[in-house]
Amino acid sequence: MGNIKRVAVLGSTGSIGRQTLEIISTHPQRFRIIGLAAGKNLDLLTKQISQFKPRLIYFQEEKAPLPTAECRFLSLEEMASHPEVDIVVIATSGKWGLKPTLAAIRAGKRLALANKESLVMAGEIITAEAKRNKAKILPVDSEHSAIWQCLEGEQEKPAKIILTASGGPFYGYSPARLDKVTAEQALKHPSWRMGEKVTIDSATLMNKGLEVIEARWLFDIPFENINVLVHPQSIIHSMVEFSDGSVKAQLGCPDMRLPIQYALSYPERLPNPQLPKLNWENIKELTFAPPDFNSFPCLKLAIEAGKKGGTYPAVLCGADEVAVELFLSGRIKFTDIARLVEQALEKHKAISHPTLEEILAADNWGRETVMQLTKGDKR
Amino acid sequence: MGNIKRVAVLGSTGSIGRQTLEIISTHPQRFRIIGLAAGKNLDLLTKQISQFKPRLIYFQEEKAPLPTAECRFLSLEEMASHPEVDIVVIATSGKWGLKPTLAAIRAGKRLALANKESLVMAGEIITAEAKRNKAKILPVDSEHSAIWQCLEGEQEKPAKIILTASGGPFYGYSPARLDKVTAEQALKHPSWRMGEKVTIDSATLMNKGLEVIEARWLFDIPFENINVLVHPQSIIHSMVEFSDGSVKAQLGCPDMRLPIQYALSYPERLPNPQLPKLNWENIKELTFAPPDFNSFPCLKLAIEAGKKGGTYPAVLCGADEVAVELFLSGRIKFTDIARLVEQALEKHKAISHPTLEEILAADNWGRETVMQLTKGDKR
Repeated sequence: MGNIKRVAVLGSTGSIGRQTLEIISTHPQRFRIIGLAAGKNLDLLTKQISQFKPRLIYFQEEKAPLPTAECRFLSLEEMASHPEVDIVVIATSGKWGLKPTLAAIRAGKRLALANKESLVMAGEIITAEAKRNKAKILPVDSEHSAIWQCLEGEQEKPAKIILTASGGPFYGYSPARLDKVTAEQALKHPSWRMGEKVTIDSATLMNKGLEVIEARWLFDIPFENINVLVHPQSIIHSMVEFSDGSVKAQLGCPDMRLPIQYALSYPERLPNPQLPKLNWENIKELTFAPPDFNSFPCLKLAIEAGKKGGTYPAVLCGADEVAVELFLSGRIKFTDIARLVEQALEKHKAISHPTLEEILAADNWGRETVMQLTKGDKR
Repeated sequence: MGNIKRVAVLGSTGSIGRQTLEIISTHPQRFRIIGLAAGKNLDLLTKQISQFKPRLIYFQEEKAPLPTAECRFLSLEEMASHPEVDIVVIATSGKWGLKPTLAAIRAGKRLALANKESLVMAGEIITAEAKRNKAKILPVDSEHSAIWQCLEGEQEKPAKIILTASGGPFYGYSPARLDKVTAEQALKHPSWRMGEKVTIDSATLMNKGLEVIEARWLFDIPFENINVLVHPQSIIHSMVEFSDGSVKAQLGCPDMRLPIQYALSYPERLPNPQLPKLNWENIKELTFAPPDFNSFPCLKLAIEAGKKGGTYPAVLCGADEVAVELFLSGRIKFTDIARLVEQALEKHKAISHPTLEEILAADNWGRETVMQLTKGDKR
């Protein structure tokens, strides 16, 4: 195979998965798709299979056509730890990323991690396993990729991390005004092209809260040293302050393909004319503001769940996922998302240092609790 | 001496020199002053000698008192290459930095270089010598320190450098309005505390032009890939764009002590409560604009002299130094600085790949030419 890295993309039909395949098709001399895994979109998976001719395939319902006799179906964990795989891209959503993430780490793979929930729910277990197996977790989130890029070549841990947030489409809205926003409005993100779940999480700032927890684990830094800063232009993707007061920032156009490519090509960078460049003739100003915890309580809920630890972050994730689904299907209001997540967290009897099974059970418990809380509701 | 680095500060009574001594007195367990060199300010040098008790002393007129019998006078080059010196800080002004810079490089010292003229006038010779002696030149200028910090840990050369410029106290002025500004106004820099010469050079943007030439040599990058961007807040100290479109920036309060400390402590960073930290509650916006080459022709003159190379940059430096002195003493107008430098450059018959002596002769020629050009002038 020479210098060509063999890549498995778990979650290939989602937004990150599709953009990963774009990057890979731009660099055929560097990367080859060996595995594709998808959950629901059989049409797109079939097209991807015929374009990339992977040998390893996963489809949630095992109905995908096998293009050649050499192809075979296998589980997500088998794919993530398969001996012919060099890089595993975890772009599945929600808790589905958890077990393959651990399988890839245990098999010593390079892990490009786009799935937030893995670290949010099981950060303690995953970082301990990564340490034990000397596996490096390369973040694909633009914010964490920014922090990672700023830390390259530095000898010390960050004194402070400044996670930037676009503020979402409802930045500046009062709680009363947020009561009336629709799913259609919430899906129009001002700067990023992303999947539906993460777009709604961006609108509630839950996404930023999950990123705070993720940063805590990825960079082994206390919550107190992680700040969130609203930066509507989404040009500065995050910043790191060092002990001497020097601050480094990573900037770029809001385009997920850049952090995806960096996680694949690291420690190299690859020229890619398809990636947009910042044009300083058009950038007149970058603005900053503190986050509004009052209008966007999900941010505080997430940070608090992260600080409490144990099974709280898993309940947060499960409850939020169901609440977002209910909002997208028009059954609850935008402001109900935070209310339901908060109620689930309040009801939860947490377990400290949970096992993976206890974490997955807490996620389920969060989902069921939100379903029950909304059973009597009518709109 | 253990882990204590022995430092010689050449130009200890100037602005950078004094701030270097501040940093060193904050970290007595890390640095010790072994050499102090000054040109004119005997009073301050005497105080510094009694505070830091250096063993090696240089004073331009050799009249400084020797505090102890162990102390001795020596030349700048002897001090820069002295076997007991670990780090040489070159904070002398103008051409006086050139020979000690070369002496330090040839002796394999760590060189913290604040003197712009060394690289501007003799970049070709100095970088070749540094390569030959495997010496590393650590920049002390905030812009070049920023670029250097952004490049740490990267495998590739920058695709583009974006040098930020405050724009100086006269940003937005028309050429006609600039005709009337006084030395007193020009010495009030909006964000930086610096020596008089560099403050005037900041007002004409000559300083930024010299920094472009310096960057070309320090980072071995063509002039075409170095851009200047006006950023009045002086928070982003410069940026680097990589081949994948990712941009890194280094930010901080406008305080020279940070880049000075980094050049001394590299590759470590040292906590220093005396260094101010950025407070994002107060930073509402960072703004950007293209430089105004029409009102500030020195910027273009410098870049053109740098591109032409040979002895042109030395003439630029010599002519500018005399022109700035004439402006500070009230004998010429602010706008005359660019006019005189341009005339000197036009008259010059350049030498390609000059020797050090030819470079110093060209600097002298530039000084004399400006003196002659102004002989007949009356104000």
